[in-house]
Amino acid sequence: MPNTSLQRLKVILIGSGNVALHLGESLLAADAEIVQVYSPNISHAKALANKLKAKAISSLAKIDADHSLIILAVKDDAIADIVKKLKVSDGIVVHTSGNTPMDVLKKFPQYGILYPLQTFSKNRIVDFRNVPVCIEGSDVSTLMSLSNVAETISDCVYHLDSKQREAAHLAAVFANNFTNHMYSIAEDILAKHKLPFELLRPLIAETAEKIQKMSPSESQTGPALRNDKLVMKKQIALLEKNANLQDIYKAISAGIVKKAKSKK
Amino acid sequence: MPNTSLQRLKVILIGSGNVALHLGESLLAADAEIVQVYSPNISHAKALANKLKAKAISSLAKIDADHSLIILAVKDDAIADIVKKLKVSDGIVVHTSGNTPMDVLKKFPQYGILYPLQTFSKNRIVDFRNVPVCIEGSDVSTLMSLSNVAETISDCVYHLDSKQREAAHLAAVFANNFTNHMYSIAEDILAKHKLPFELLRPLIAETAEKIQKMSPSESQTGPALRNDKLVMKKQIALLEKNANLQDIYKAISAGIVKKAKSKK
Repeated sequence: MPNTSLQRLKVILIGSGNVALHLGESLLAADAEIVQVYSPNISHAKALANKLKAKAISSLAKIDADHSLIILAVKDDAIADIVKKLKVSDGIVVHTSGNTPMDVLKKFPQYGILYPLQTFSKNRIVDFRNVPVCIEGSDVSTLMSLSNVAETISDCVYHLDSKQREAAHLAAVFANNFTNHMYSIAEDILAKHKLPFELLRPLIAETAEKIQKMSPSESQTGPALRNDKLVMKKQIALLEKNANLQDIYKAISAGIVKKAKSKK
Repeated sequence: MPNTSLQRLKVILIGSGNVALHLGESLLAADAEIVQVYSPNISHAKALANKLKAKAISSLAKIDADHSLIILAVKDDAIADIVKKLKVSDGIVVHTSGNTPMDVLKKFPQYGILYPLQTFSKNRIVDFRNVPVCIEGSDVSTLMSLSNVAETISDCVYHLDSKQREAAHLAAVFANNFTNHMYSIAEDILAKHKLPFELLRPLIAETAEKIQKMSPSESQTGPALRNDKLVMKKQIALLEKNANLQDIYKAISAGIVKKAKSKK
């Protein structure tokens, strides 16, 4: 079992995407044994298994799951189907989703969550020691095991219940997905005026860098914070041919104005 | 005049805020002479003037503006009043605002724009060589002079007309102000569930880091990109007591969905 330090941790990875890749590499570096990598597409499974010195399989029936940690690192909507097909009598089954309740795994004897709160890309190196890993367990002993495993790969292990994980995932949608859409809108506005996105990269870097030490509620600036109606009206007019951009501009500005007023 | 390389550039700074500070320090380091620093508050003027080996003044009548570059680094709504009071017969007057037309300066013989596209804070060091500086000039000779000055402090000098600068400023509102509000909302969601903002800092850093090399339209992820209506509905419900947050969530998600469809 994962919580005995004398024995090398055995891991089975279900999935071959970016989360599986980065988790697998970190676990291997932390001296875990990656026993098998599963993907319905055997060439995907092989590509990752080779990197992780593991065996590739494309059938869930072939899983040698006992005494192992089985990590479901697949898309949210693939979890249910895999759970249905997977047979585990001894071992811990976890998924890595921020947005899926833990009890989808309740048919297993021990189960839990290993949710890395980071965005992973194929060609970018991520230092897993700085990745917050949110864990949850079906019982105290499982939670302890998962805590031990998580600490071998990350310095930032958090125990979150399902409600908190749901909130953390929603917060991540704002901090990552929605933020990226802000960048994307900015790129479009520049492109329309034949300006390169290059112009904004230093500003974007500094905006993110600034809040590494301070609270974003302190670092807010701009026309909405000053409730500068003239500038806001002018900028909304600049977006006149795009109702969606106007909606976004108005809703966010209203939020900033509201927050500034509540602080006074 | 600024474009003769044999003579040391003389600069007068109107304003003592963060833009004046960072611009002044960069110009001084590039061997310009900061002659005077003006602020209506003499102690503010003195504090900055001391750093820049300049003379502090609190009356615009005392400005020794001739043969100099006069930089209005003040809040947008203070520009008009200063222009009214300022008398310059020989020298270039510029402002540093992204959002103010150049022709507010038209009473001066030579005028233009020196708009650094970055967010400046008192206690953060910014490498000005990486700050995009957007310039505009009342005539070709003025533009050439400003180009020479800008190149002494930055490796990223862009010549933007007023329309383009307006667009760049609007894009900066999305990339900086609105992005910061996304961070702020995320912080509030976490706080409501007794979770520290710390949890999101690595994700925020990676989100900004990712687009330093790629286009944000390529790095988009999340439920809206997949048009995952179930997750979006669930997350909107999580925000149920805050109509403004729901508006923001819906408008941005609609934008992401729309963009994903247009790419297909």
